[in-house]
Amino acid sequence: MPQDIYDKIMMVAKRRGFIYPSFEIYGGIAGFYDYGPLGSQLKNNLENLWRRFYLLQDNCVEISTPTITLCEVLSASGHVEEFTDLTVDCSRCKRSYKVEDIIEKGMTIEQAVKENKIICPTCKATLHDAHPVNLMFSTTIGIGEGRKAFLRPETAQGIFTNFHLLYQYSRKKLPFGVVQIGRGYRNEISPRQGTLRQREFSMAEAEVFFDPKDKTHPLFNSIKEKELFLYDNEKELKVSVADAVKKKIINNQALAYYMYLTQDFLLTAGVDPKKFRFRKHAANELAHYAVECWDAELQSERFGWVECVGIADRSAYDLNAHIESSSVDMYASRAFEQQREVMMKKVVPKMNVLGPRFGGKAGKIKEQLEQLDAATVQKIMVTVDGEPIEIPKDCYEIVEVTEKQTGEKFVPHVIEPSYGIDRILYFLLEHNYTEEKKKDEEYTVLKLSPRVAPIKTGVFPLIGDENLIQIAKKLDAELRKDGISTYYDESGTIGRRYARMDEIGTPFCITVDHDTIHDHQVTIRDRDTTKQERRKIEDIVQYMKEKISL
Amino acid sequence: MPQDIYDKIMMVAKRRGFIYPSFEIYGGIAGFYDYGPLGSQLKNNLENLWRRFYLLQDNCVEISTPTITLCEVLSASGHVEEFTDLTVDCSRCKRSYKVEDIIEKGMTIEQAVKENKIICPTCKATLHDAHPVNLMFSTTIGIGEGRKAFLRPETAQGIFTNFHLLYQYSRKKLPFGVVQIGRGYRNEISPRQGTLRQREFSMAEAEVFFDPKDKTHPLFNSIKEKELFLYDNEKELKVSVADAVKKKIINNQALAYYMYLTQDFLLTAGVDPKKFRFRKHAANELAHYAVECWDAELQSERFGWVECVGIADRSAYDLNAHIESSSVDMYASRAFEQQREVMMKKVVPKMNVLGPRFGGKAGKIKEQLEQLDAATVQKIMVTVDGEPIEIPKDCYEIVEVTEKQTGEKFVPHVIEPSYGIDRILYFLLEHNYTEEKKKDEEYTVLKLSPRVAPIKTGVFPLIGDENLIQIAKKLDAELRKDGISTYYDESGTIGRRYARMDEIGTPFCITVDHDTIHDHQVTIRDRDTTKQERRKIEDIVQYMKEKISL
Repeated sequence: MPQDIYDKIMMVAKRRGFIYPSFEIYGGIAGFYDYGPLGSQLKNNLENLWRRFYLLQDNCVEISTPTITLCEVLSASGHVEEFTDLTVDCSRCKRSYKVEDIIEKGMTIEQAVKENKIICPTCKATLHDAHPVNLMFSTTIGIGEGRKAFLRPETAQGIFTNFHLLYQYSRKKLPFGVVQIGRGYRNEISPRQGTLRQREFSMAEAEVFFDPKDKTHPLFNSIKEKELFLYDNEKELKVSVADAVKKKIINNQALAYYMYLTQDFLLTAGVDPKKFRFRKHAANELAHYAVECWDAELQSERFGWVECVGIADRSAYDLNAHIESSSVDMYASRAFEQQREVMMKKVVPKMNVLGPRFGGKAGKIKEQLEQLDAATVQKIMVTVDGEPIEIPKDCYEIVEVTEKQTGEKFVPHVIEPSYGIDRILYFLLEHNYTEEKKKDEEYTVLKLSPRVAPIKTGVFPLIGDENLIQIAKKLDAELRKDGISTYYDESGTIGRRYARMDEIGTPFCITVDHDTIHDHQVTIRDRDTTKQERRKIEDIVQYMKEKISL
Repeated sequence: MPQDIYDKIMMVAKRRGFIYPSFEIYGGIAGFYDYGPLGSQLKNNLENLWRRFYLLQDNCVEISTPTITLCEVLSASGHVEEFTDLTVDCSRCKRSYKVEDIIEKGMTIEQAVKENKIICPTCKATLHDAHPVNLMFSTTIGIGEGRKAFLRPETAQGIFTNFHLLYQYSRKKLPFGVVQIGRGYRNEISPRQGTLRQREFSMAEAEVFFDPKDKTHPLFNSIKEKELFLYDNEKELKVSVADAVKKKIINNQALAYYMYLTQDFLLTAGVDPKKFRFRKHAANELAHYAVECWDAELQSERFGWVECVGIADRSAYDLNAHIESSSVDMYASRAFEQQREVMMKKVVPKMNVLGPRFGGKAGKIKEQLEQLDAATVQKIMVTVDGEPIEIPKDCYEIVEVTEKQTGEKFVPHVIEPSYGIDRILYFLLEHNYTEEKKKDEEYTVLKLSPRVAPIKTGVFPLIGDENLIQIAKKLDAELRKDGISTYYDESGTIGRRYARMDEIGTPFCITVDHDTIHDHQVTIRDRDTTKQERRKIEDIVQYMKEKISL
């Protein structure tokens, strides 16, 4: 059977140390992959490039929260209820299938269920009783009954549950963005599509908080003339960022800005622009928390167009959900242009009840109660010295008062670009994989961008002469000391050594030869042009840094 | 109650955005912490500094494997059996305790159990039936019965189970090192000690594979004169790396080399050398896989000496365990100086049995069987096209033959430096936290090393003049474009802005003033000396890069 490009890439990936199937010595299991030495470095470089875009260019901040997440968080966010796949079980084959995976092409899930057209792909029996199955991995914290928890399905909730602290960090100014890079988990029923559908994956998410009355972005003007590659489910179109917003193709500036940032990031990382587009979600595709969503899709020879980034307007969905479930004040505030008189429901603590009941804590409870907006909270919880305390109704009154206010509270909206790092990484391999014949032999070159290439340069002594080896090793150590990853190699012909580097995407090779001893110059060979030039040894570190934009 | 240093640091850490207790809006749970914007950046910087030492200086490679780990892996490694804490339950209080946490100071666990001296710290009842409780979080992959799995207790097993592929990556040369940085999990019975004992933590581990007959390190000579800070459980001593090995204080060069690398890393990161030492594990402290282990301990005002890095000689324990459980060839080989004749047990496939039984796969099975060393495998498993197949005994014979051999196979030994990133991060805060009085106000300076400081420089216009703001914002953007994290601030007095930066450890502040408009120079203020100097704007990026060793 002739191999397709996915098979070829996965073979090279395993042989050369990019990607290994996990737990292979114990038979393996679908949906888990390891990154070998080159894959891991490629992933680090990709994530660090992403940080350049989101932290340094867009001025977001990064946080890092646990992968184990308390059930309460994911109940509030809707994942316990909604993060499901419709599933059928075949009692004959003793296997379960995701309905979406096994229905006829062109048929919707609803149709298939209604018309009894769900067929077991193994035994061909008609399957019934399609039921939602939650896709979160569950575990228990502590022993005995412990506390129920899940592995996070997204990193976003770790950001939402800290909103009040992050809003304080931003000195109460909107918009501000918070990102998280880390593992996410999805206990797929029966994952297919290899590395594109993993049960444990790496994601990079940004949650950018906006005043819903002002979804503009401070850097919008700097990119508004750039072109976006859009697909409206019928045809592809190129349109400027500004026009896309003006013509309401994209709902607001913020969403359009992050779509362009995403496009810029992906093309900088090395995605083929001819195999890139944004596709808008139809209403029935939207996740339970989204009001508008665009997918950045990349095209694969085997898999067709694949979603790699989702850029969603989550509106106030998540913050509202956590305010309601936790009763914690997670509002932002905006100043009025002039002072207003407002009717308000205030919580008035009864100290004569609070005092005897809560002793030394009563003062702190009183302070917190006075901050609450009684119109928006139901059950009143406060946290004193880290301990959550429910305040019974007889401890306070709710009173309507007229207040002069200089501003008002509101729940911010969220624009979320959410990146699947593993998918993007796979596409960097597929889009940059090239084959040619050299002297009748298959010769593969992986044309990775110098920004993300795992190894930046090979360092070779031309032959095994001790003088050349010494110079080459010294140069190798200097490059490494300055943060440039190298591969020192003295075995085989130079051609063979170039070939090894070409196959793993190393953009440069530096060779020390006999002339080096006299002229202190080395030869730098460019992977893509195969051109060679000579440069002084002492200039090499700086030259390489510029080439790889370090 | 006067606060101790831990309380003070945790207060600043929460207020300024280093560390938040996780899930606090839902009451929180012990053993989980979030890193806020500054903590997350500090952690990234610390991990990247670690990569500089291990990947670029020591030439290790990095891999990245799932946190969810098949039960088979952790059964083989001994964790299912051995990764436990001795625990007692109090039936009156309905709580469980780790025995070690609640016994009298100076008493050993064995004594306490034998003499019935385990007392409930809450109700003072004498507790019995101490029993081991496994500390791994468990979960299930897939639905229905699924497959049993755990969250990894260490990243190391992901390296060991890929040894054969990594050995191929290293082109079959020893020694070579493989690192992994990522989350580890330990379902503590009832964690105390705040951020120092987390249930989900970040670790950085290196597994360096050596020929057991040659535990030398290629870079040993470059560090052999350096001094190590050792503690032999009685007194502290300073001794050169070379002497420590010569006098057998440390068993071999490899172990001593990684101890020095660890010391160098920690001191470079900003640990106080007066609060640092290596302590050797007593025999009864050793983990189930270790034959010798040294802890790098850091001293805390509240917690005393705390283990932050363990440097263990794991010998061939793990590779042997996986060879035995998986029957996969995970040997290394060493060449003989001259050819030898060796008696061997070989597996001779019976094609007349294999052919009919396995059809088209028989050829591949035969090839694999012929590679096996019958002296070391019990059950024969081969893997054909990703499918593991057990080969019954009637498919082959075992024959003794005399072979000429040019080398022999062996199981490499492993030296493992294992770092607790969260603990080191906490100690960077404690060791660099300083208080002084300024005009009768408490003034705190966090003297973080520029290498790890989350923000490298503040950028301020002296006053809110539009001209100054424009210059400052342009400089800010240029610094960020070159990868330098900044904090732009135009609010409050300059003194107040310096104070904000001092409190979070920012080593430099750059101020644009009216003179800047004419002389194109800005003022750089050094956090620790508070000295100011003027420099040209166009030199600032390069100046900062040198200061922070980027």
